[in-house]
Amino acid sequence: MTASPLPPGSLHLLPVAGIGEVTPGDDVSAVILDGLDGCGIELGDGDIVVVTHKIISKAEGRVADVPTEAAYRRLAESEAAAVIRRRGDLMIAVTRHGFVCANAGVDRSNVAGDRAVMLPIDPDASAHRIRLRLERATGARLAVVVTDTFGRPWRRGLTDVAIGVSGIDPILDLRGTPDANGRVLDVTEVAIVDELAAAADLVMGKATGIPVAIVRGLVWERGEGRAADLVRPPAEDMFR
Amino acid sequence: MTASPLPPGSLHLLPVAGIGEVTPGDDVSAVILDGLDGCGIELGDGDIVVVTHKIISKAEGRVADVPTEAAYRRLAESEAAAVIRRRGDLMIAVTRHGFVCANAGVDRSNVAGDRAVMLPIDPDASAHRIRLRLERATGARLAVVVTDTFGRPWRRGLTDVAIGVSGIDPILDLRGTPDANGRVLDVTEVAIVDELAAAADLVMGKATGIPVAIVRGLVWERGEGRAADLVRPPAEDMFR
Repeated sequence: MTASPLPPGSLHLLPVAGIGEVTPGDDVSAVILDGLDGCGIELGDGDIVVVTHKIISKAEGRVADVPTEAAYRRLAESEAAAVIRRRGDLMIAVTRHGFVCANAGVDRSNVAGDRAVMLPIDPDASAHRIRLRLERATGARLAVVVTDTFGRPWRRGLTDVAIGVSGIDPILDLRGTPDANGRVLDVTEVAIVDELAAAADLVMGKATGIPVAIVRGLVWERGEGRAADLVRPPAEDMFR
Repeated sequence: MTASPLPPGSLHLLPVAGIGEVTPGDDVSAVILDGLDGCGIELGDGDIVVVTHKIISKAEGRVADVPTEAAYRRLAESEAAAVIRRRGDLMIAVTRHGFVCANAGVDRSNVAGDRAVMLPIDPDASAHRIRLRLERATGARLAVVVTDTFGRPWRRGLTDVAIGVSGIDPILDLRGTPDANGRVLDVTEVAIVDELAAAADLVMGKATGIPVAIVRGLVWERGEGRAADLVRPPAEDMFR
């Protein structure tokens, strides 16, 4: 339709299609490298690899049988560190990582049979391992963002957010940055990895079986933060 | 760094740089068309135009003098339909549109002098007007998403979300869609316009004065929804 060249500063979201079922013991970084190979994508410096947690959880064996609705509910309860609200069958819980989400992140979609997938034990550590292996294999300076799909208060619909991060700070801190009018910004902390997760979901989809996307073209600095840093300290939180 | 071609299904985020200060009475669609022209971007069928509300509010005269901190607070109070929480100087309020955000959406960054910008009176109507004019000028089938930057409970940092929409349904409804394993998805409603807003913010930034971005490459269907549809009905909301 349009043939105009893309302006400088453009950003690209590349879906990594063709990744098959992942099973316990699989090496997720090898799975990703195979997928990239199949798509003809060569990772380069500055690429951000966004991975839905589901393939990581499966590789790490965080899958359980839930033959009945009651078994599913018991599993979700066992994954919850605290419950914030309940309504009917819906439980809004705090996970052991500190994330607040429905059913403590236990999910039955995109898993075969009567099984459910839990969150990785330590998604930041998973992201870190994947980043190191991908960097070693490609020689590129990368970041890795592990995602899940969360609801939120007040707004309908779900969006993908970051639950694991390696190589990039999860928060872009603009404190002290002047805006276009020279005034210091009111908005100081941008949850950039959540924006990356949401952006990547646009090419991953929920039903298409694309568990990995590459974000290319963002200017970012190496950071050592973890997604756990995204958790608002309960004492500062007005909605617990 | 990388010369590999982008795989099919890739999505592109194009910043529209070079848009100057907008003043009351300006035609935002003309401002956008000028900006696109300056960047050499030609709109095509399926392009989604993401616009930060701030230039719309300014064009619509939704700017007020706030010479003192107290004046700023009074303005925020007057924009609030209801207050959900207060802590110190921070007010979490429901706007007249039904959105829940800090200070009822009244913001002092990226506005000259001791002034503050309010949300547009009807951001869906603003988006609609902009879409019709851009479609008439370009002949392309477009969608328009108007954004603001909101905080959220439980998670640190802010992300951009949609507060006005035209031409696309704000919610992608996957009810009844089977996942890659043939199971009907647990996740049924994706807030796709919020993901578009978050993605666009990656190229717009907060301090760079880029108020417009184009999302190119997404497959979407014409829809008639409004961002107001994103408001979760208070009776269904567990966090009021």
